[in-house]
Amino acid sequence: MTRVLTNARLATLAEGSAGLGLVEDGAVLIESGRIAYAGPQAGLPPAAGAERLDLGGRWVTPALIDCHTHLVHGGNRAREFEMRLAGATYEEIARAGGGIVASLAATRALSVAELVETALPRLDALLAEGVSTVEVKSGYGLDIETECRMLEAARELETRRPVRIATSWLAAHAVPAEYKNRKADYLAEVAIPGLREAHSRGLVDAVDGFCEGIAFSAEEMAEVFAAARALGLPVKLHAEQLSHCGGAALAARSGALSADHLEYATAEDAAAMAASGTVAVLLPGAYYFIRETRTPPVDLFRQAGTRMALATDCNPGTSPLTSLLLTMNMGATLFRLTVEECLAGTTREAARALGLLAETGTIEAGKSADLAVWDVGSPAELVYRIGFNPLHARVFRGERI
Amino acid sequence: MTRVLTNARLATLAEGSAGLGLVEDGAVLIESGRIAYAGPQAGLPPAAGAERLDLGGRWVTPALIDCHTHLVHGGNRAREFEMRLAGATYEEIARAGGGIVASLAATRALSVAELVETALPRLDALLAEGVSTVEVKSGYGLDIETECRMLEAARELETRRPVRIATSWLAAHAVPAEYKNRKADYLAEVAIPGLREAHSRGLVDAVDGFCEGIAFSAEEMAEVFAAARALGLPVKLHAEQLSHCGGAALAARSGALSADHLEYATAEDAAAMAASGTVAVLLPGAYYFIRETRTPPVDLFRQAGTRMALATDCNPGTSPLTSLLLTMNMGATLFRLTVEECLAGTTREAARALGLLAETGTIEAGKSADLAVWDVGSPAELVYRIGFNPLHARVFRGERI
Ligand SMILES: [Zn+2]
Ligand SMILES: [Zn+2]
Repeated sequence: MTRVLTNARLATLAEGSAGLGLVEDGAVLIESGRIAYAGPQAGLPPAAGAERLDLGGRWVTPALIDCHTHLVHGGNRAREFEMRLAGATYEEIARAGGGIVASLAATRALSVAELVETALPRLDALLAEGVSTVEVKSGYGLDIETECRMLEAARELETRRPVRIATSWLAAHAVPAEYKNRKADYLAEVAIPGLREAHSRGLVDAVDGFCEGIAFSAEEMAEVFAAARALGLPVKLHAEQLSHCGGAALAARSGALSADHLEYATAEDAAAMAASGTVAVLLPGAYYFIRETRTPPVDLFRQAGTRMALATDCNPGTSPLTSLLLTMNMGATLFRLTVEECLAGTTREAARALGLLAETGTIEAGKSADLAVWDVGSPAELVYRIGFNPLHARVFRGERI
Repeated sequence: MTRVLTNARLATLAEGSAGLGLVEDGAVLIESGRIAYAGPQAGLPPAAGAERLDLGGRWVTPALIDCHTHLVHGGNRAREFEMRLAGATYEEIARAGGGIVASLAATRALSVAELVETALPRLDALLAEGVSTVEVKSGYGLDIETECRMLEAARELETRRPVRIATSWLAAHAVPAEYKNRKADYLAEVAIPGLREAHSRGLVDAVDGFCEGIAFSAEEMAEVFAAARALGLPVKLHAEQLSHCGGAALAARSGALSADHLEYATAEDAAAMAASGTVAVLLPGAYYFIRETRTPPVDLFRQAGTRMALATDCNPGTSPLTSLLLTMNMGATLFRLTVEECLAGTTREAARALGLLAETGTIEAGKSADLAVWDVGSPAELVYRIGFNPLHARVFRGERI
């Protein structure tokens, strides 16, 4: 099947091109779901018999990529949110069954089918805004069976919607009550053997962890990463969100795909991540929702040449956010990212953070034809507007959705 | 036409009821577009021949009300946003034609039909989230003809969509270049005679102004309010946003429907507003977008018993926001409003701020049947989620949209 999109204005985000890689008067040739040509309409190769689609001068970007989510989970934490606003203390919330314990219990109670059904509305909200690739983590099961069930549900989403799902094993998210004060046992009995089992079942694309004073140390995460390496799996890490714990340095040292959050990262971290090609995934939704006051060191990342991506961190406790467009606006408004950084951060750099840059994330010949077509006057409008969805059409693997 | 909604969970927001006015096992009887009964299903009057709609246990709230917008305007300011993020100074932006001057030029260039067409996507974004009443201001014309054209366009929106529009004359928004250093002349030659003309054409529901060091003083606004009073029109005011200028006190003294923004309001202002029944309309979108650091004195309003509403302030310069659900989340997250205050602030209190409380804003017998039906587990979820739209159906004047 061959398709030609004509009369398009392209923001290709192609690596090496200046800025957004703009092509006014652009065209895209799609063959068998892949981009065969993207560039000036004048250079379009002959495509006899192709289906032609005139985009009426609309802007086209790569389809968006949400490279950090906890999209699959049970329940929500609206009650806890309400209590906190009404002045309840953390202890009162905990006594009322709030906190991660609530998400754990709600997630453990659901079957794969139920996890899929409850995740679909959130996934649909992302897709409606031009997203075509979503990373989904485990981490609300904290036992082998539930962690696997979460990733089975994540995989199942690919069969229910036109979307590419990248899974991350995040058993090292927290220590469940049954392993209280036995962190090493939890890693040795659940997180690491569970990883091997999930990997053997084809459920794992990458291995993640939460490196923080309240979770796992860099030394503990290094053990999990060693197990990942033995399986040939890439790693990534929740790092330096609430304090500086050495997670970013570990991620860089381990050649991680990304280190995420990074509010407390240092100049040394930025340099190490730039050198290792580890993407800094910034999560303004969590910063906003939990009212952090320290922003990630964007200037240090710029100076070091660290790549920056942006993601929703969609999760019930600290970022119940399902809009990647809004995430871009938050990246600009709260973190002072430029329009170009926001758009690259949800396309090219997000693809890089998932190890998928050869497949998607830019409009370049050879890649999957994953595109978003927008009713906007300029790409900057995608970042500028708040709570507005100008998506005209989404193209995934060459098919118009 | 008689309709019965059964198997509903109601958050009536009825005045005098505790909290959200919850009715589990609720039902609503609608006759000729108005609520004939709302309460426990057990108390539903017989309604032979009525069309029955089973809501499957879904939550129903009053339709939402956006009581402060600049929805009708020309152009957008995405370019200016992009420049600012890239480090441009205000002077550079002004030289590039940015600032309110840009919106002025873009608005003056549009016909009524064009103003309507460009406003419709923004209006549709609001309606898609259960909004049924929208306030729309003039203020980007600053000449009599364009100010009138903006309100004509606002009125026209009512004929294009199932929505109730409340208009505000806001010629006292800024001083146009042609009246530079002649503020008194602008008021005497444009703002006040224009108001009389617009009123004579039936275009004005209320009179607004921008009381601020960079705009009009309380004394200047008092002149405009005197003209409004002579016409029998209610008043409201942008007050105490960037500094304390006496606008809230003027609003209270004038029996204004609302004073809006209020970051710099004092305890005395709060008490005066409570006494005069002037609603404090809080605008977290503008606070967020222009990165204000001072929040409105919510505790003072609570102590004084000042009513609080929430609105988008949708405008191209300081709040390009078209989601009232997100506005609720911002009210909670940024201003620490409770869930109840957020929901009341976009329904009952927003209606009060428009002088429409007898007509809409709560689910009570006698009012217009303006309802929103939601796919949520609790009303708190409407405030908790970010960038997610769980609207199941909207009912406007008894008709399901
Ligand atoms: Zn996360
Ligand atoms: Zn305003």
